[in-house]
Amino acid sequence: MDIVLLGSGNVATHLGKGLKGAGHHIVQVYSRNKAYASALASLLKADTIDNITAIRQDADLYILAVTDEAIPPLAEELSPAITGIVVHCSGATPLAVLHHFSRYGVIYPPQSISKTVEADLSKIPFGIEGNDTSTSQYLLELMQKISSLSFLCSSQQRLALHIAAVFANNFSNALFQISHDILKQHELPFDLLKPIIAETAQKIQNNQPKDVQTGPAKRGDQQTIRKHLDFISENSNWVKIYQQLTEEITIQNR
Amino acid sequence: MDIVLLGSGNVATHLGKGLKGAGHHIVQVYSRNKAYASALASLLKADTIDNITAIRQDADLYILAVTDEAIPPLAEELSPAITGIVVHCSGATPLAVLHHFSRYGVIYPPQSISKTVEADLSKIPFGIEGNDTSTSQYLLELMQKISSLSFLCSSQQRLALHIAAVFANNFSNALFQISHDILKQHELPFDLLKPIIAETAQKIQNNQPKDVQTGPAKRGDQQTIRKHLDFISENSNWVKIYQQLTEEITIQNR
Repeated sequence: MDIVLLGSGNVATHLGKGLKGAGHHIVQVYSRNKAYASALASLLKADTIDNITAIRQDADLYILAVTDEAIPPLAEELSPAITGIVVHCSGATPLAVLHHFSRYGVIYPPQSISKTVEADLSKIPFGIEGNDTSTSQYLLELMQKISSLSFLCSSQQRLALHIAAVFANNFSNALFQISHDILKQHELPFDLLKPIIAETAQKIQNNQPKDVQTGPAKRGDQQTIRKHLDFISENSNWVKIYQQLTEEITIQNR
Repeated sequence: MDIVLLGSGNVATHLGKGLKGAGHHIVQVYSRNKAYASALASLLKADTIDNITAIRQDADLYILAVTDEAIPPLAEELSPAITGIVVHCSGATPLAVLHHFSRYGVIYPPQSISKTVEADLSKIPFGIEGNDTSTSQYLLELMQKISSLSFLCSSQQRLALHIAAVFANNFSNALFQISHDILKQHELPFDLLKPIIAETAQKIQNNQPKDVQTGPAKRGDQQTIRKHLDFISENSNWVKIYQQLTEEITIQNR
């Protein structure tokens, strides 16, 4: 399959490598960031394109792996004469932003893909959507060769998955940073909490999270909760987060 | 070493097994919950005690592995004539609640230890405190045989570690439950997020959390943030948590 990659960020990089590894040809890489585009194109043995009119019209697949905001204008710039499938990779962007193409869809990885960390695509359950059954099925088969966890979903389900991933990944990572900062303030290494963080993630692989909850909020231990709130009282944002998540654990515990 | 275990919950169970495994004798198990006490005593080949006056005065170590609230009254009931070391296992309880004994301290596991999940004590960095240098050193040597990660800390550092563990473990686990519930509402399996949760915990083993942050809050993507808040608008607690953690990521990103 001949593939044109639009974008040169984290998702473009990992998807490009994955698809090339599965035997497909990445024929062109287009990106506004010329340095990133040539680096990625060189890695994928593809041509670098910095003018959108130079994009080939005869590829089988066009992957818009750019930020959510950049998807609609980029889709507008692409020739509607393209007959290959055009997809984006966003959790929160409607399928319909690609409606002026004849075949279009979404390949959404509910994963936090960062450049600094190697990604194992085979462990990512890509959410697949197409504008019709044959396109959905085509994209599903393509992606299942890269990750057998890939699955068909609706736009509504994709958005739910995106939001759930923000809670599970972005927000828990923000909590890890708070714990890092609390330890640092008291001259303790973040290493002390790495085992508990690993264990917390491990436990929910075979249990529903609320069934393995522990701690003062779960026990309704108001004395400890007050002591903790007093200890972090100088950071009003941490206090609010502490109170709100304590309230949430109380609700989950009912 | 002859050890008396006071308590029969999660921490008592795992510490009892760990210390017995390291060659010590658990001579008595005392607990108000008679059924738990006999089950644990039988496991540890110890005597069950349900009357506190029957506790031996000649053991080397007394471990109060009970809830934070239960520590002060239990310490009051124990004979001050005890010459062995008396310790509690709480992150948030002052060392001084044990001051009427001659030697006392704390063995604090900053870990979420639940009965349903096997605990590997060798991966837990026990925070150790004693009322004097020799007691601290004695407890440190004892616990380092069970976990080489054990370390000396002050009361203030122990409380900081406890609070940091609440953020890193209890609160992130509450977020995992929210993501579980969002998926369930849209007929998606929680399994979809297990890889990203494992990856989130894995990433911070070698990176500072804020350096591997991704997502709409990190990008300042207000359009996606509004879309998400609208999607979860029926749950006011989730909305507040979403807003507060988005604000926190913005601050961490500065």
